[in-house]
Amino acid sequence: MSQSRDSGQTAAPAAADTTRERILAAAMEEFARHGIAGARVDRIAKLAKTSKERVYAYFRSKDALYAAVAAREYDVIAEATQIDPTDLPGYAGRLFDYFVARPDHHRLITWGRLELPGTATGADDPTQAAITRKIDLLRQVQQAGQLDPAWDPADVLALVNQIATTWASQPELSEAAAAHAVDPTTAARRAAVVTAVERLFPRAR
Amino acid sequence: MSQSRDSGQTAAPAAADTTRERILAAAMEEFARHGIAGARVDRIAKLAKTSKERVYAYFRSKDALYAAVAAREYDVIAEATQIDPTDLPGYAGRLFDYFVARPDHHRLITWGRLELPGTATGADDPTQAAITRKIDLLRQVQQAGQLDPAWDPADVLALVNQIATTWASQPELSEAAAAHAVDPTTAARRAAVVTAVERLFPRAR
Repeated sequence: MSQSRDSGQTAAPAAADTTRERILAAAMEEFARHGIAGARVDRIAKLAKTSKERVYAYFRSKDALYAAVAAREYDVIAEATQIDPTDLPGYAGRLFDYFVARPDHHRLITWGRLELPGTATGADDPTQAAITRKIDLLRQVQQAGQLDPAWDPADVLALVNQIATTWASQPELSEAAAAHAVDPTTAARRAAVVTAVERLFPRAR
Repeated sequence: MSQSRDSGQTAAPAAADTTRERILAAAMEEFARHGIAGARVDRIAKLAKTSKERVYAYFRSKDALYAAVAAREYDVIAEATQIDPTDLPGYAGRLFDYFVARPDHHRLITWGRLELPGTATGADDPTQAAITRKIDLLRQVQQAGQLDPAWDPADVLALVNQIATTWASQPELSEAAAAHAVDPTTAARRAAVVTAVERLFPRAR
């Protein structure tokens, strides 16, 4: 980064950001395909058209690079799907669509759950902070009478996430459904997910 | 196996089965911890108190060994949790309990979903055959008027599996729930899972 800064005040940060962005995009692809232990930093460097040394200059280790990719991915998902605690079925539909369009993003997150469980450091961890914010949002709509207060808000969030990713999570069932569902289309799978969330957590009126 | 058979008619198959069993148990542990690419057959052999060559005599490859472990694990889960299509909330509760007691078994299955997607070979595949049988069971109770026929039976199975494993699947949420749930006990998480399935698919009366 300091190298880029030496080469000019306005252009340099952009160049630095571009290299960093290329590394993150390459790492996203490599981690989604091979997981964390299976990922190779030299392949990431090659794909990002940079050197292994530069990758380590930006990210001190492979785990740190994964953490950066995953943290950004959680942000991108949150931004793209916009939780609306008064319309959880709509939110579930957006999550479903997100992962249908980007199965590699679901893989990326799943690898981290297997390979780096319990690495969150509590309230300072950005993923934990984002989850806590969502739980607080749900608690607020419960207090406003827009969501059944009998549910624990932590369960509401967990169930909505889980139901939305029903088909992304169970490839062996997707295969069976393709052959044995009454209607094997993606639209039918999506409708079932949205209906399930609607039955559990109806839209606020 | 032929070596064991040489040593006596009655004792030999038991001895052979014991070695095979030890390999499967060791492989279960190794795959759950490291995944398929990360698993090492020499570690499995050591843990099973046998040789790498014997492991390959029973199972032709690491992938074949994983497939044998996973197929058996699916059988053990099915046997332990006993799907009852007229009491899906009860079934979800048993699945929940199974994976709370055996988080490594959930990891084993998740690795396979990431590392060997789409390896099922259709109707001949034992996992696919088991899923098809469950879908057929659900269709039958729908036809008998014991389960809402508006649901696609493939969605019912997928949703029940998915809801039952809500907390096993999202370790980052478990951590947040421990700090921010109204009631952070496992019993409360279980009750929410069972209630969710009950709301969607009430017990037949």
